[in-house]
Order: sequence, then structure tokens, then C-alpha cells
Amino acid sequence: MKFCSDCGATVGLNIPEGDNRPRYICTRCDMIHYQNPKIVAGCIPVYDNRILLCKRAIEPRYGYWTLPAGFMENGESCEEGAARETEEEACAQVENLRLYTLFSLPHIDQVHLFYLADMTTEHFAPGSESLMTQLLPEAEIPWDELAFPTIGRTLRYYFADRQAGHFPVRSEALLRPVRAN
Amino acid sequence: MKFCSDCGATVGLNIPEGDNRPRYICTRCDMIHYQNPKIVAGCIPVYDNRILLCKRAIEPRYGYWTLPAGFMENGESCEEGAARETEEEACAQVENLRLYTLFSLPHIDQVHLFYLADMTTEHFAPGSESLMTQLLPEAEIPWDELAFPTIGRTLRYYFADRQAGHFPVRSEALLRPVRAN
Repeated sequence: MKFCSDCGATVGLNIPEGDNRPRYICTRCDMIHYQNPKIVAGCIPVYDNRILLCKRAIEPRYGYWTLPAGFMENGESCEEGAARETEEEACAQVENLRLYTLFSLPHIDQVHLFYLADMTTEHFAPGSESLMTQLLPEAEIPWDELAFPTIGRTLRYYFADRQAGHFPVRSEALLRPVRAN
Repeated sequence: MKFCSDCGATVGLNIPEGDNRPRYICTRCDMIHYQNPKIVAGCIPVYDNRILLCKRAIEPRYGYWTLPAGFMENGESCEEGAARETEEEACAQVENLRLYTLFSLPHIDQVHLFYLADMTTEHFAPGSESLMTQLLPEAEIPWDELAFPTIGRTLRYYFADRQAGHFPVRSEALLRPVRAN
């Protein structure tokens, strides 16, 4: 950030009075421009014991597999964001969303949320950000070709919890990049 | 937003190619300035069956009671943000944080997260954003003087769940302002 988005003057990095960390502050109008973590919301879409995965058609991680997920938008709930991404990336409708995993990723200023979700029909297809979409049983998950660490962790929890018969909600921090699978 | 924070030129509100909603786009350097919901993270600090509340010394809702909570910062986890706010607003140390409630507030582009937390000692005191801090039993919660709807809902869930002996994690949307208590 170099300029004030409100008045166009330059900004400086200083600690505001009563605050305890540097913020971008406008040198003309004094507006403080806070920067905060972004939420990525997604689903674990389930149909007939299989999971819907998308092969990414965009960077980062072009060609790798992901659960449908993306940046939450203003004006929507976390559940609406997760369902919207599932429709956009995999052309699938989901219902009965239940919060399942929350990952803090402080090194990239993101929080990832995944919701367990039931597909309302078996219909799915690649959206514009996907090369391919597939409904896969546990034995066919491409563990070595997953796009992001939070995808692999969520899927591993899911299959272990399915075995155990209950799905506790988890909140944890991934303090540094870990292997995707 | 009126100016590009990267180059200082004016921005326009247009739908980027391949997108489906208007974004602020720089008229000179074409940078797209996305806007996303912010996370508020807080604790339900518990000591000896009592809950730590703070009387707000700042707007909005000056003079009303809140659980310690505030905007999550870049570079921290949700749990770290919740514990930091508890220290800043109530000078209290907490441990054993467990995710408890997640509220989407799409009308104000916020997501509120509250963690159940054990106070490590009985020590607490008002921080600079609090007029007063108190450790209160259920019978003394000031239900009619709570600052925000998500505080009242979290406290009501907590006391009901304590009665029932288990604390399921909840994710829900508050689609419009509701009464604080």
C-alpha cells in the first residue's frame, strides 16, 4: 500500500496513538488503513460415500486437486460462500452444511473454513476455474496431487472420522507450510 | 474506495473479465482491489464457573458489556487473536481455547468467532478499551446491557450447554440485526 484509497495522498507506516502496531496512515487525511486476514470458505461435498474434487484450471497450483473453495465475499455468510464456490467450481448443489474444519494460516494471512455438505443430486461438472471434476471414493483420492495443505488435512480427518462415526469440529493453526498430502 | 492504493490513480467500479460482481479496478494500472469480510475473534473466559465481561470504554456501544473480542490481525491465528484481545481488554491470561460459536454477519461484512477459554489465574483488570471488568456468575449477567447480538447468543448457548454438559460448536448466520440480549 502506497496511496490512500480515500483521498489519493501517500501513506506512511506508523503506530497510531493508542495502538500497538504499525498501520498505513494517510499523510494528508489521517485515515488509518487496517489490513486483516481473509477467509477462504469451501465444502466437502459428499454423494453416496464419495467426495467431489476439482482439478484446478488456475494458479496457484494449476493442475492439482482441491475441494471446492474460495475467498468469501462481502454480503454473504460463510455457508453461502462455501455453497457458492461449490456451484462455481464444480456446478454442484449442496445442502445441510455443517462446519467441520477451521485452519488459521498466519504466514499468509488467511483462515480456511470447510463445511461438510450433502450433494442434492449426482450432477456435477467443471466450472471455469476447474479442468475436471470427479466424485471419488477414499481409495481414489489423489493424495500426492492435492493443491493445498488444508485440503489434505480436511480429507484425512474426514475419512478417519467417518470410520469413527462422528465428526468433531476442529480449529487449528498451520504455523508454517506443510506438505499438501 | 476512490483511489488505487498501489499507484494513486482513480478507481472505477466494474466487473472484471471472468468475474461475476463489480470490483474497484484502477483506471491506470488495472489492479483489482477486492474487499472481503473481517474476522472478530474473542473468548468466553471462565474462572470458577464465572464469566469475564468487559464494560466498553469505546464506541460503538460505549458503556455496554461485551466478551473480550476484536478484529483479528494479520500474522496471527484465530486463537492468538482471541487470547490477545482478552489480554488487551481485560488484562487476563487464558489457555485451552476451544472453538465454540461462529457467526456470519453479512449485513456488516464480519464473521465473529468465540472460543471457550480457561483463565489461568483469577487476575483481571480493565484494559484501555474497557471502563470496568467483572467476573460474573450466570445470575448477574447484564442481559439488557450487552453490546452486540453475538455476545448475548454466545452467552445463552454457554449457560444452556453448561446445564446439558456438552458444548457443540455452532456456525450460523445472523441475517439482520437482532436484539442484543
